[in-house]
Amino acid sequence: MHIDILTLFPEMFQGVFNQSILKRAADKGAFSYQTVNFRDYTTNKHQKVDDYPYGGGAGLVLTPQPIFDAIDDIRTPQNNKPRVVLMCPQGETFTQKKAEELAKEEHLIFICGHYEGYDERIRQELITDEISIGDYVLTGGELGAMVVTDSVVRLLPGVLGNEQSAPEDSFSSGLLEHPHYTRPAEFRGHQVPEILMSGNHAKIEEWRHYESLKRTFLRRPDLLEQRELTKQEKAWIDEWQNS
Amino acid sequence: MHIDILTLFPEMFQGVFNQSILKRAADKGAFSYQTVNFRDYTTNKHQKVDDYPYGGGAGLVLTPQPIFDAIDDIRTPQNNKPRVVLMCPQGETFTQKKAEELAKEEHLIFICGHYEGYDERIRQELITDEISIGDYVLTGGELGAMVVTDSVVRLLPGVLGNEQSAPEDSFSSGLLEHPHYTRPAEFRGHQVPEILMSGNHAKIEEWRHYESLKRTFLRRPDLLEQRELTKQEKAWIDEWQNS
Repeated sequence: MHIDILTLFPEMFQGVFNQSILKRAADKGAFSYQTVNFRDYTTNKHQKVDDYPYGGGAGLVLTPQPIFDAIDDIRTPQNNKPRVVLMCPQGETFTQKKAEELAKEEHLIFICGHYEGYDERIRQELITDEISIGDYVLTGGELGAMVVTDSVVRLLPGVLGNEQSAPEDSFSSGLLEHPHYTRPAEFRGHQVPEILMSGNHAKIEEWRHYESLKRTFLRRPDLLEQRELTKQEKAWIDEWQNS
Repeated sequence: MHIDILTLFPEMFQGVFNQSILKRAADKGAFSYQTVNFRDYTTNKHQKVDDYPYGGGAGLVLTPQPIFDAIDDIRTPQNNKPRVVLMCPQGETFTQKKAEELAKEEHLIFICGHYEGYDERIRQELITDEISIGDYVLTGGELGAMVVTDSVVRLLPGVLGNEQSAPEDSFSSGLLEHPHYTRPAEFRGHQVPEILMSGNHAKIEEWRHYESLKRTFLRRPDLLEQRELTKQEKAWIDEWQNS
């Protein structure tokens, strides 16, 4: 997979892309990336990338020219069907399902604005996807592009070792994870639950299932709506609802 | 505001924290931060920060000792009531309202795990908040801590200029933003809508309101459930529903 990132702040990406999984994935050849400062594509002499909005109002709007020209330059005849992702608050809310979908692509392009709005013609002509990582205001699209890249690249074949991929199974179950404990058995007066040290694997599995469901019930009942509950799960939930 | 970030990958933060708004906010003295590598606090000779889970299973779990000791070190007698935020998929989903709440604090501490789970005693004893930035799997809590920091710090007094703060007003209205256009009036055969160049401000406002509501109706109908609709808005929605 190749990822191009159009941004006015390419230096923002260095810390995240040169560490941990993204670094390892790039070293292994599982993905490559390049940051493209679209200011380099402006044809006006002041290198301006934004301008006042038609119709008036506060704020600036990114002009279409530098972004169109940068994308023309990135799309080669061999590689003319990239997914072009606009990071913006108006986009669809990012989910694990979307990450899995993007992980099948060969070429992703992210466009990151910073404060400004996007000229609508960018949206109409260039974009295949608009993504928001959540319902909160960020200074720019850069952090969103890093979040999407991290969640997609870790799904590529060979990127994660077995130990690192374990948490995902739990996420995929549709329930929040049960509590974890490790050594020491007592720390500052707090004990590990006895059952986890019992060696009774059936009981341990049951305890984990119960705790996982309970945490989901208390914190994210919305996740349970999408789940087919077993008889045992229904019985537990009835119990919590009645107490 | 002061922010401490406990992480095994402090270098990840440099690109984001040394650019744009966070850099400017730090230069102005609106906030200060420090990254704390909690591996420096381990008392075992191999500097291990994680261990196998009690009860068996794949994956590793962060041990309590280095994180407890790092937090003891950060909390001073003068400053003993920080908000201690665990970045984790089990946390409450981050929203703009939560950003506004955290922006009132004097001291935030973020704890970022990486692959591993957290020993439950960390959660029980140290934590005031658990936050997830969305329903997707990330390699670690670092990107989440950057996202929360960006969204909180930009709300601190004096950090944003007027031009930069404009988009937020739109977000606060509970609707997605209307389309924006800037020069040139024609670009690659695509025109700016005539109304925006008409100079009729009442009509322009109405067009923007209509487009903003329509985009929200089509893309994020969930946002409309929380909104008291005006008569005009109800009429527009009826029209779209019938077509």
